[in-house]
Amino acid sequence: MEPVNIAILGLGTVGSGTYRVLQRNHNEISRRAGRDLKVYGAAVQHLNKKRDCDISHLKLTTDPFSLVEDPEVDIVVELIGGCTLAKALILKAIEYKKHIVTANKALIAEHGNEIFSLAEAQGVTVAFEGAVAGGIPIIKTIREGLGANRINWLAGIINGTCNYILTQMRDQKWNFNTALQSAQEKGYAESDPSFDIEGMDAAHKLAILASIAFGIPLQYSKVIREGICNLDPIDIYYASQLGYDIKHLGLAKRTDAGVELRVHPTLLPKNCLLAQVNGVMNAVAIHANAVGPTLYYGAGAGGDATASSVIADLVDVIRNMNIPAHMKVPYLAFQTKLLENLVIMPKEDIFSAYYLRLSAKDEPGILAKVTQALGKRHISIKTIMQQPAEFSHDKVPVIIITHPVKEGLLRAALDEIRVCGGIDNNIVTLRLENLILD
Amino acid sequence: MEPVNIAILGLGTVGSGTYRVLQRNHNEISRRAGRDLKVYGAAVQHLNKKRDCDISHLKLTTDPFSLVEDPEVDIVVELIGGCTLAKALILKAIEYKKHIVTANKALIAEHGNEIFSLAEAQGVTVAFEGAVAGGIPIIKTIREGLGANRINWLAGIINGTCNYILTQMRDQKWNFNTALQSAQEKGYAESDPSFDIEGMDAAHKLAILASIAFGIPLQYSKVIREGICNLDPIDIYYASQLGYDIKHLGLAKRTDAGVELRVHPTLLPKNCLLAQVNGVMNAVAIHANAVGPTLYYGAGAGGDATASSVIADLVDVIRNMNIPAHMKVPYLAFQTKLLENLVIMPKEDIFSAYYLRLSAKDEPGILAKVTQALGKRHISIKTIMQQPAEFSHDKVPVIIITHPVKEGLLRAALDEIRVCGGIDNNIVTLRLENLILD
Repeated sequence: MEPVNIAILGLGTVGSGTYRVLQRNHNEISRRAGRDLKVYGAAVQHLNKKRDCDISHLKLTTDPFSLVEDPEVDIVVELIGGCTLAKALILKAIEYKKHIVTANKALIAEHGNEIFSLAEAQGVTVAFEGAVAGGIPIIKTIREGLGANRINWLAGIINGTCNYILTQMRDQKWNFNTALQSAQEKGYAESDPSFDIEGMDAAHKLAILASIAFGIPLQYSKVIREGICNLDPIDIYYASQLGYDIKHLGLAKRTDAGVELRVHPTLLPKNCLLAQVNGVMNAVAIHANAVGPTLYYGAGAGGDATASSVIADLVDVIRNMNIPAHMKVPYLAFQTKLLENLVIMPKEDIFSAYYLRLSAKDEPGILAKVTQALGKRHISIKTIMQQPAEFSHDKVPVIIITHPVKEGLLRAALDEIRVCGGIDNNIVTLRLENLILD
Repeated sequence: MEPVNIAILGLGTVGSGTYRVLQRNHNEISRRAGRDLKVYGAAVQHLNKKRDCDISHLKLTTDPFSLVEDPEVDIVVELIGGCTLAKALILKAIEYKKHIVTANKALIAEHGNEIFSLAEAQGVTVAFEGAVAGGIPIIKTIREGLGANRINWLAGIINGTCNYILTQMRDQKWNFNTALQSAQEKGYAESDPSFDIEGMDAAHKLAILASIAFGIPLQYSKVIREGICNLDPIDIYYASQLGYDIKHLGLAKRTDAGVELRVHPTLLPKNCLLAQVNGVMNAVAIHANAVGPTLYYGAGAGGDATASSVIADLVDVIRNMNIPAHMKVPYLAFQTKLLENLVIMPKEDIFSAYYLRLSAKDEPGILAKVTQALGKRHISIKTIMQQPAEFSHDKVPVIIITHPVKEGLLRAALDEIRVCGGIDNNIVTLRLENLILD
């Protein structure tokens, strides 16, 4: 059989990792695909830039469209990133009936519904394992490995930058800025780190995971999103005293009322397996209705790690290419219609436990006002901890952990507490999840 | 298209779980398979036995061969277990050109080479995701998700009975027999528990994992196997003092000298993610050359959990059935020829760190003899801990942790130590692994 020609668009970290791994494990990969794989060419911005792979036999061009439109090319591997050029290239590739493999989480999360409709109409596959959780084969796991299940919820540490920063804040007792600087020095955070630390990257990935898990359209804009920039090391310390770690989690839950989609700092019991995931590593916990709780752990980013997923997709796409069109099982794209009872929950309807830290005047009666404001709304307190005032301070910290409560109700209680008198406006509010993983 | 007819052989825990999950999630499963799935019939030993599923619409027979030979049946799901009847049925099914899905680890581990050769010759698939690690889709992960990688090693907690017993011995400070009894009361151990506690079950599963991971024939008889029956709670306590947990691990490692295959109690650093896996849960850690360290965690046994894997296989088999024979990519069966440099290492050539507990007379000079016997063989000591003699005892425990050493050399050193005088014959010897999972 003829070799399959692939075009790699972009030779950055993931692109050069992909080419490198393809060369290193070429025979094994071709064997698994059932056909010989040939890298027909690669598109880059700068021809003479030094690359992290051996490009001596690689045909380079600065015109990615020339590869996409080339009739010799069977599969387009988009590893440029972003939503402008990458989107134009992918749409053009679909038009030219090429299959696509991408690691572009932003593009899939924000434009995936459109891309998948077009791909389905053209009978081509768009695969995106590398877009979520790096080298962990999580998309394949949800779609195929857990295909017999209905998924109840999933919770993921899916941004290595945030997880590294939080690990350092906890272990080194650093503040956020120091930890961020350390991440940047190690190459774990960009010079403009906002995409990671403000949670957009995690929200993109969560939108994708939730779509595959629940069979709903991509709804990135509805993900409730909070980053880690405002975290104070003192809360990491208090949480630890109370038996919790703070992780930046992506959560997708199916409830009777609808689907929750949220990424935010979250208190997790220290002995929860997910809380043991440190540094830049990622993990996704999935609770499904036949197998129960499961967890998948590995490198969430990096050239070779993401290449591992990109190439696994290539093998699947090539194996699928051999199937006559009328016999193909449609690649499980997203549902284009929202199933009627699966609304995405707005923020005020989210049901969660909370960690609160108030700063209260060291006077009688304040605690009573606080507990009344909560009690009258039936907000149940699990733990309350008041620390004595430090020398020369007139304010004491009061830490409260609530049982699960509707967010709208809690916000109303906090609004009332703020006007009580004697309590600072700034009340630290962090969600808490008692995930059961056994 | 015609529905696909499946026959379920055995309606025990996994069989009734499979039928139950198929009924519960029928539409979703058919959608993913691309064809309607029909349970044509089931074979059982006792027609009137109470089943853990709704059998009102299920055609039952006590003659499993009648289903296997029935031209209407497309796929045979073997959930009987064991190597006698199950083997005869599977060979007959292959002869009749039926595809097979099984959860039978013993059969695959001990007869898989033969079964796969015959299946390949007949052009049928034998799938066995449910045979290893219950509901964790580990076979699919190794074959497909990590298909772009070369696997360096894998380490698994793959027997829930052993893991439950060790967790209880550690947390409740019980001895082995008490912990075993507790496991039996909870249904986590059989009345004859030998298969689990002596390590045969883990060895079966490890042989299968290693074959898929390294592309070698199944070599169950070469797995170095030790169970947990001889573990003393005092060693769990000392290990803990030194920062280690004891788990019953299955280890498969590729080294320059060959492949190590072993299942045995193993000291693991407490902070290793694998050491956080408790109770009946399973986990497999895999280190691969592109993605690096990964870990997969979930229920290793149970009706619905294993059914999850059986049905995922059914979907794959059905999707594969649609492919014309000349276009099929051969289902990656085991290599029938051993790759020339992949010998399975004999016990004395295994390279490992060790935990040793000697019982020595409380006299001068004993330690010198011990350290000399080790030192002259260049066996490096990482830690040595001598506890004071308890009141009225004349022996003291000496605990040693070595750096990695060839087993044959260590055994020679221990033989010399035993004849030194002043040291008990019984020297507790446990292997230790410093697995790096980040």
